Amino acid sequence: MKTGQALEQALARGRARWEEYGGSRYLRLTDDFQGSPKGAVSWHGRLIAGYPHIGRIFRLEQGLAQQFSGPFWVEEKIDGFNVRIFRSGDRLVALTRGGYVCPFATDRVAEFLDRALFEAEPDLIVCAELAGPDNPYTQGGPSFVPEDVALFVFDLMRIDRPGFLPEAEKYALCERFGLPMARSFGRFAAAEWERVRDLVAELDAEGREGIVLKEEAPGTHRTKYVTGWSGVYDIAVRAADTVELPGDFFTGRILRLVLYLDEAGRTSDAALERDLGRAFLSGLVESVERFKRDGRVSHDFCCRFRRRENALAFMDHLRGILGHTHVVQTGLTEEGGLWVLRFAKEVPKLTGLLHQLFRGAAVVD
Amino acid sequence: MKTGQALEQALARGRARWEEYGGSRYLRLTDDFQGSPKGAVSWHGRLIAGYPHIGRIFRLEQGLAQQFSGPFWVEEKIDGFNVRIFRSGDRLVALTRGGYVCPFATDRVAEFLDRALFEAEPDLIVCAELAGPDNPYTQGGPSFVPEDVALFVFDLMRIDRPGFLPEAEKYALCERFGLPMARSFGRFAAAEWERVRDLVAELDAEGREGIVLKEEAPGTHRTKYVTGWSGVYDIAVRAADTVELPGDFFTGRILRLVLYLDEAGRTSDAALERDLGRAFLSGLVESVERFKRDGRVSHDFCCRFRRRENALAFMDHLRGILGHTHVVQTGLTEEGGLWVLRFAKEVPKLTGLLHQLFRGAAVVD
Repeated sequence: MKTGQALEQALARGRARWEEYGGSRYLRLTDDFQGSPKGAVSWHGRLIAGYPHIGRIFRLEQGLAQQFSGPFWVEEKIDGFNVRIFRSGDRLVALTRGGYVCPFATDRVAEFLDRALFEAEPDLIVCAELAGPDNPYTQGGPSFVPEDVALFVFDLMRIDRPGFLPEAEKYALCERFGLPMARSFGRFAAAEWERVRDLVAELDAEGREGIVLKEEAPGTHRTKYVTGWSGVYDIAVRAADTVELPGDFFTGRILRLVLYLDEAGRTSDAALERDLGRAFLSGLVESVERFKRDGRVSHDFCCRFRRRENALAFMDHLRGILGHTHVVQTGLTEEGGLWVLRFAKEVPKLTGLLHQLFRGAAVVD
Repeated sequence: MKTGQALEQALARGRARWEEYGGSRYLRLTDDFQGSPKGAVSWHGRLIAGYPHIGRIFRLEQGLAQQFSGPFWVEEKIDGFNVRIFRSGDRLVALTRGGYVCPFATDRVAEFLDRALFEAEPDLIVCAELAGPDNPYTQGGPSFVPEDVALFVFDLMRIDRPGFLPEAEKYALCERFGLPMARSFGRFAAAEWERVRDLVAELDAEGREGIVLKEEAPGTHRTKYVTGWSGVYDIAVRAADTVELPGDFFTGRILRLVLYLDEAGRTSDAALERDLGRAFLSGLVESVERFKRDGRVSHDFCCRFRRRENALAFMDHLRGILGHTHVVQTGLTEEGGLWVLRFAKEVPKLTGLLHQLFRGAAVVD
């Protein structure tokens, strides 16, 4: 799939849909199609390719040898949400991984990017993670973004061209235009797996998520590997929802953690056991408290916009995705030159199950 | 479904199957059918009804009121495997919950039951839990059965008649013939839910599983409720298999634990958190060690038989259910008048996944 026109084939097969944002109609690929990952977008006939799925390895020693025949670059993996940013006329547009225009990211990303970048490179697509505690999609975020959100660029693509820019070209452009980047740890070979392991051990000790590994040539293959810490962290963040997620979300992370400890030559200890147990319990205890108080389980979100209409467009976007009854706006006020949007997102399956159980229902399992 | 003949209708609809044990052919209900729970058996044309599914409540206060309009009996729930025992000619036969003749239970149950019982009551079906560390189906078992297995009777039925004997009649027969019973805590009403809660708190402190509650009249409705301890215990026993089970097995138990603590007026503490974290980690760490040593994950079982041919029949039974390659007999020796069978049961999905991961595969999740 090399041009936006190709998405019309997908449309004919029911794998793409028309969406609308700020007066622009665009075609969004809703499923993987003919080798293109879902989330690709045809924007006025031009293709913004989808960001590919990245496989995860659980063992460095065998995984690096299996995944990479030549050298690869190692970068820090950032725990936020994936956006693709491109220029349309004189504005920037940011797409989510799924290919929706995100009114929040679209409102904010210009702060992080030098406009001269798109003057010099008008067909550039910046692939980045928008991460921080005040994002509208996920609870939590990296500890090194203490408030609001920050942008971390990790890949560059070009409109209407599949694949990523080579790493060297990416680093050159990022440096020239001062783009905020995900930390790079340099170039490695599979035989150096112990160096990679030691690097990940440092990230683990610092409470960071892990790494993304990128083949140097031809430059498209990527894989990822995460710290043991990230497994416990993910559980702590999502245990509040339990039944909302497939249970395998949790068991998969336990397996990652156990294999991580094994390869790191570590054994479990009382502190880790306690952290893991608390990760499972504390969020759910809080959800039950909230259910008893409010009659529903929900999470509070807060995020900042430059323009009020983008905040309202974001609420519309979220209601469209999650359903009107599951999103409640609780505030929209100007603070220090930004519009602060506050809203609560319901956790509907857990809410429903707790209603049933607190009414005294018996469940056959 | 009131007679064995009714199972032939199920056979015609593909919901029953012919099985064979020791020269006897019998018809086994493989799915719930017309209100009869699966596991019902037609034995020489006579119906051994299936043991019904029992729903679980998560809240005593609302659950007891919702489930019982009149008085109910409370008994201890035993963590073993469910058998139905009946007389066929001059021998006893024990069926598993699924309706297979179990060569292990069939070999052993006579030790626990007075033969005079079936002389006096030839059409009786004894519903009981066979529990202990040396059972061939599940790892672990109740702490009060330190070795081998023990039998705990909890219900009586009659051949060709649906439903259970009334509790009073059950207690009278058990007493008269000295049958080993699951502990009874007496008769309660829903308004006494705090007494029930305190009783369960004692069981929790003793590391026991929970209770089964049985309506006094008309005598068929049952429900169950478990201790917080049992959730942690189940996780500790089954975490060694993780991916073998649906992840919801684990998250369901966390939810039970959290709701248990809430109703018991308890908060989580460091000891519980650590127990829970260790429950998740220690079995899986052991499974990974075993995989690295043996190239597969498996569990060792040991159980005792009076007759050698029953041990061999049991191995055949297990190979038939699990597949030949997943069961390995590791010993069959006479010790102190009993035949001690040792075997290993493979955990195939976890074995397969670890093979893949240790080869360095990348998994897209």
